[in-house]
Amino acid sequence: MRTSYAVGVDVGGTRIAVGLVERKGRIVKDAKRLTPRTGPFAVVDTIIDLVEEVSAGVQPSEIAGIGIGLPAQIDFTRQSIEFCTNLPLAGVDVRSLVMSRVRQEVTLDNDGNLAAFGEARFGAAKGVRDFIMITVGTGLGGGIFIGGEPFRGSRGLGAELGHIVIELDGPPCPCGGKGHLETYLGRHAIAAKGREAAAMFKGREIVAAAGGDADKVTAESVLMASKAGDPVAREIMLECAEVLGRALVGFVNIFNPRLICIGGGVAESADYMVARAAEVMQAEALAGRRDVEVVQAVLGNDAGILGAAALAFDEHDAREGVH
Amino acid sequence: MRTSYAVGVDVGGTRIAVGLVERKGRIVKDAKRLTPRTGPFAVVDTIIDLVEEVSAGVQPSEIAGIGIGLPAQIDFTRQSIEFCTNLPLAGVDVRSLVMSRVRQEVTLDNDGNLAAFGEARFGAAKGVRDFIMITVGTGLGGGIFIGGEPFRGSRGLGAELGHIVIELDGPPCPCGGKGHLETYLGRHAIAAKGREAAAMFKGREIVAAAGGDADKVTAESVLMASKAGDPVAREIMLECAEVLGRALVGFVNIFNPRLICIGGGVAESADYMVARAAEVMQAEALAGRRDVEVVQAVLGNDAGILGAAALAFDEHDAREGVH
Repeated sequence: MRTSYAVGVDVGGTRIAVGLVERKGRIVKDAKRLTPRTGPFAVVDTIIDLVEEVSAGVQPSEIAGIGIGLPAQIDFTRQSIEFCTNLPLAGVDVRSLVMSRVRQEVTLDNDGNLAAFGEARFGAAKGVRDFIMITVGTGLGGGIFIGGEPFRGSRGLGAELGHIVIELDGPPCPCGGKGHLETYLGRHAIAAKGREAAAMFKGREIVAAAGGDADKVTAESVLMASKAGDPVAREIMLECAEVLGRALVGFVNIFNPRLICIGGGVAESADYMVARAAEVMQAEALAGRRDVEVVQAVLGNDAGILGAAALAFDEHDAREGVH
Repeated sequence: MRTSYAVGVDVGGTRIAVGLVERKGRIVKDAKRLTPRTGPFAVVDTIIDLVEEVSAGVQPSEIAGIGIGLPAQIDFTRQSIEFCTNLPLAGVDVRSLVMSRVRQEVTLDNDGNLAAFGEARFGAAKGVRDFIMITVGTGLGGGIFIGGEPFRGSRGLGAELGHIVIELDGPPCPCGGKGHLETYLGRHAIAAKGREAAAMFKGREIVAAAGGDADKVTAESVLMASKAGDPVAREIMLECAEVLGRALVGFVNIFNPRLICIGGGVAESADYMVARAAEVMQAEALAGRRDVEVVQAVLGNDAGILGAAALAFDEHDAREGVH
């Protein structure tokens, strides 16, 4: 049966956003709440409340299913959460817990994969079969499409593009590693560089963006100051773009993709990052550089919801044999 | 029609080796010659001579085709050579030149991809659908199998696993890049470390392996000294293994493979490299580390010939609709 809606759930470290989405990608109704900090069941209850809120008044048979994106490594085949840095969800059977209450099919996936799904179906990667999605936010998420299909690795744990070593003796990564790409580009890294600048005279615009308090400098302060044209903040962001570009060299040399799509809160607040990263990649990658375009993602804050809904539609159609 | 043989050609920077190979992977006859340094046509002529030599006396209809492995980036669809560091073959239509003389189907591929093909069909990766092949020799070659099929990227230029940035300010790479994995593991890097040690008292075993002449220290001197148990040479090789292990962290986090197969002349001469690299990877990779085994390649010097022959059989069978 042809269904009209899917529910997309985007679970982040700070907030959970849920949307009722039409097949063409229009979000008909949405709702969000802060991510509870009181344990896994509070997170699950919040997901269920929000799903019920957006789907109220819709016939259950009209809904294709629920897609849930998590900042976690997920065994896609078993639908189990293997590893989750920021939320206490590893080992929790979120899928069964939600399904048993909401009575809809539920599919979990990694948030980076779902950002890729969203851009592939409704955004900047529409019609592109081979592309790489990178989201720069609190962490660095990745998604890979090969031949029009999401690539997740043998058990679904792959595409962790933020967790490659880019500097042998680099800073510690929240995952336990060292010198990973994420440690150079995520909000923590940007905040640290901002505080470093704030400790010096040249950082006054960044401090101003933090309300005049050097102790309150965050990544957002740097992003705000850079948007306002502060050269110091802009330099910090360009250094990030440089590292991102060096990572893209590897991704182009490994994947020979047609498109690299860069999204996430940080990249959206500093769109020149994308141009700079592309330049750096073009100067160093092998022959595949001529095949690839580097673009900004277009779905913004809705990427997670839309990607999760796209996955739910796909899973529904696969179950029903719709093509 | 079911053919009995394929011809595998392994073009290296120093020698060209060709073999007549049975379907089960037995090399019936082989021949090799130094790679000519007098231009592209001398290379092509040598390939043709060697192919004719090994296939003399065999009915042409008995031969499935010719596979040629090159140390180059190849547009697999167009069968064109896009980039070749060590030989003047970029832009040369090697396939047509060989086909027009030998009158057999010819398929070109990157040497790293063919090493993976060989191990997948006849070696350490037999029956494994998702694996990564790494060859450590003069350069660092890579091959990727996903779902039982070789993955080459959208235009066939991918799987260049040696050309990822592993150190932002690392040494220059022959490809023009900086801090690429290859610059830490290839013969040039090992020779440089050997000469550095040779300049000091502690490097005497390495100098001895170079016939007592510190100026003649090569990667082979280091490998020989390390085989003879010299702790300084062994330390150099263990440092290489450490960097390789850090690179494997990224490959496991991106590909979530079931197997990583490590071959090539350098890795074969220092088999403890594989164990050490595996250890380093296990200590740092995300959840996918539990899925993956790291093993030594088993085909040795024959990997290139066998992989090229495996490709030729596959291409033949695909043309003829054999399964």
